[in-house]
Amino acid sequence: MKSIDCVLCDELGGELIFQNSHLRIIAPHEALYPGLIRVIWNSHAQEMTDLTFEHRSQMMKTVCLVEDMMRQIMLPIKINLASLGNAVPHLHWHIIPRWVDDTHFPLPIWGETQRQVSQAWLHEKAELATRLVQAIKEYFMQHESNQ
Amino acid sequence: MKSIDCVLCDELGGELIFQNSHLRIIAPHEALYPGLIRVIWNSHAQEMTDLTFEHRSQMMKTVCLVEDMMRQIMLPIKINLASLGNAVPHLHWHIIPRWVDDTHFPLPIWGETQRQVSQAWLHEKAELATRLVQAIKEYFMQHESNQ
Repeated sequence: MKSIDCVLCDELGGELIFQNSHLRIIAPHEALYPGLIRVIWNSHAQEMTDLTFEHRSQMMKTVCLVEDMMRQIMLPIKINLASLGNAVPHLHWHIIPRWVDDTHFPLPIWGETQRQVSQAWLHEKAELATRLVQAIKEYFMQHESNQ
Repeated sequence: MKSIDCVLCDELGGELIFQNSHLRIIAPHEALYPGLIRVIWNSHAQEMTDLTFEHRSQMMKTVCLVEDMMRQIMLPIKINLASLGNAVPHLHWHIIPRWVDDTHFPLPIWGETQRQVSQAWLHEKAELATRLVQAIKEYFMQHESNQ
């Protein structure tokens, strides 16, 4: 189902990493949050409890798959998971790698900025983010028949 | 497993609504966020992917159960779900009811305050929160043998 005036009904929301009939994995490439990945439900559901039990499970399985690969490749000190959607009430999960020297740590990325990060820092993390995106693509190329 | 100097290993974290051998449901009663509920993994896991598949599923089933009852009883315009834990890296989920006239909407509650809320508003929401806590307790009294 599609909703009028919903940006996530109208647009992919970033670089498409993987998509099946239910959901898609997106790299939004937000400059200050390298490696942030979103898992977006394709149809216009608002909350997790608007999905069937099976679909909730599929969503979280995908979120955890991304989390697992993010931990292995980007070596963050913490993972932040969030389904908020106050501005865009179309079910999507943020999977966010966090480091002690990132812009907001230990606050959530929606809190007050704690520090500036250098271009070298951003470049290093962006390289890890590129590796993560590639690894997720390769995973699904190998496992797509099972999804 | 318990971790040294972890507040969620040492303390319940608020009013205990329900507890089984794996997790607990807590009402922290934070004055400005009426109805916010936390589901906390009992042992010291850091991330969802530190749990087994079965335990992840149990965690999200409980989060969704709270979300479902929160929607029915508190009638928020949106639910926010988050597992952050940057300051307290012990796996816990926030389930947060949101309204257009709450302190932070449409920002996450960790963002900049958008407005003040009246005592009457807080009182009304606190009453709904009390009903929610009672309803979750009653649910588990009826279903505990199945958990």
